[in-house]
Amino acid sequence: MTDPDLTRDAFLDGRVQAWQPRAGYRAATDPVLLAAAVPVRAGQTVLELGCGVGVASLCLAARVPGLEMTGVEVQAEYAALARRNAAENGAALQVVEADLEALPTDLRARRFDHVIANPPYYAPQGPAAQNAGRDKALREDTPLAVWIDTALRRARDGGYITLIHLAERLPDLLAGFAGRASCHVLPLAARAQRPARRVIVQARKGGRAPFVLLPPLVIHQGAAHLGDGDDFTDTARALLRDCAALGLGEMAQA
Amino acid sequence: MTDPDLTRDAFLDGRVQAWQPRAGYRAATDPVLLAAAVPVRAGQTVLELGCGVGVASLCLAARVPGLEMTGVEVQAEYAALARRNAAENGAALQVVEADLEALPTDLRARRFDHVIANPPYYAPQGPAAQNAGRDKALREDTPLAVWIDTALRRARDGGYITLIHLAERLPDLLAGFAGRASCHVLPLAARAQRPARRVIVQARKGGRAPFVLLPPLVIHQGAAHLGDGDDFTDTARALLRDCAALGLGEMAQA
Repeated sequence: MTDPDLTRDAFLDGRVQAWQPRAGYRAATDPVLLAAAVPVRAGQTVLELGCGVGVASLCLAARVPGLEMTGVEVQAEYAALARRNAAENGAALQVVEADLEALPTDLRARRFDHVIANPPYYAPQGPAAQNAGRDKALREDTPLAVWIDTALRRARDGGYITLIHLAERLPDLLAGFAGRASCHVLPLAARAQRPARRVIVQARKGGRAPFVLLPPLVIHQGAAHLGDGDDFTDTARALLRDCAALGLGEMAQA
Repeated sequence: MTDPDLTRDAFLDGRVQAWQPRAGYRAATDPVLLAAAVPVRAGQTVLELGCGVGVASLCLAARVPGLEMTGVEVQAEYAALARRNAAENGAALQVVEADLEALPTDLRARRFDHVIANPPYYAPQGPAAQNAGRDKALREDTPLAVWIDTALRRARDGGYITLIHLAERLPDLLAGFAGRASCHVLPLAARAQRPARRVIVQARKGGRAPFVLLPPLVIHQGAAHLGDGDDFTDTARALLRDCAALGLGEMAQA
């Protein structure tokens, strides 16, 4: 892909700059919120499944120093962009071009402190997008249960799996982790008093703690969008602009 | 049980008066909120599984006229109190003393527009309460999956099952309905920005609509309890005192 087919976009108020296909799947706020929710400490290992151009991992690296990160991406052009983005952002992200269901042997021999993913949101039987790369990034060709199984296998005992997905898939997300991990769920609502659009599910492999349903994170102020400019809540702005952490464990203690 | 062993308690600002064992399981706000959430119309049929002294069904009857209600209760003394409470409140509640897993034949031949339940909250291996009746009402001797199976079997196609339970049991609740009903979940939080303590799950038998996670209902104002008197939010007060309906379907459209 040549540069005229790409845009270079800023995340976290410019702390992260990422090349993305102009007409393909384009990262927005979800990978930024995903990265904010990962309770990672300096020096830990992180695996991102389906990393696309790498935005979630790059946002993680912008918040926490000294991470050793690996991204898996099945689409060659996105994997190449993730490598370029990692280099240009000075992030220690190794990118592996592979299908989730056929990870290379050396990766299958490793266990990570954290596994993160922003899996495709839409059913494989849905209408095809006009762009093959966008289509692949959005359509659930690999079942969600396989994403969860793969994440659980690659996490160490006591390690965390953090996923962001459509709220309507919460039953499937919880079913995937049932009996294998303890889960915290953070609903993400566009506005107060609205149903959740997304959920962040954080699972601790082998955990036995009771399930926790956290209060929703509300992204926008007010009841509807008014005028120009952003209308983020203070919390959302801190996460999306100021690189704040989203501590699900701390929220559970409230 | 003689009257000195009982108390007569008011619900919905006195619209419902119910005798309860002084030392046994005592209904509080959960059955009132459960009743508020049932989208029942005048003249429909309702089955309450594990009705105890009947508070949820009596609250439903106080809000919607002309219901034909049946309550199942395994404990003889609670079933007897439910009959007395139904008579004294003028409610059309027929009480059947039976185990969920051995319902009488005539009940097994029926399908209801609504099935409701406030199942026991605590694991059967927990410490025994000092009161056998309270113990039976609180301990999950019958697995939650059996409550859900029984509710699904007794609901008509397109009928609703409405349950209230601990938020930590949400994964089990959703697993019980998976593939058999569409679900709306309303988290109930004691205060804003706290994790949910309870959930109301409303399932439509045979429904295919996407899962919906609603914004939480917050019960108390402020960050902590201060002083005497209640500190209910306006919404909670309307539900608990003024017999308002809690429209989960309407909340989903917000």
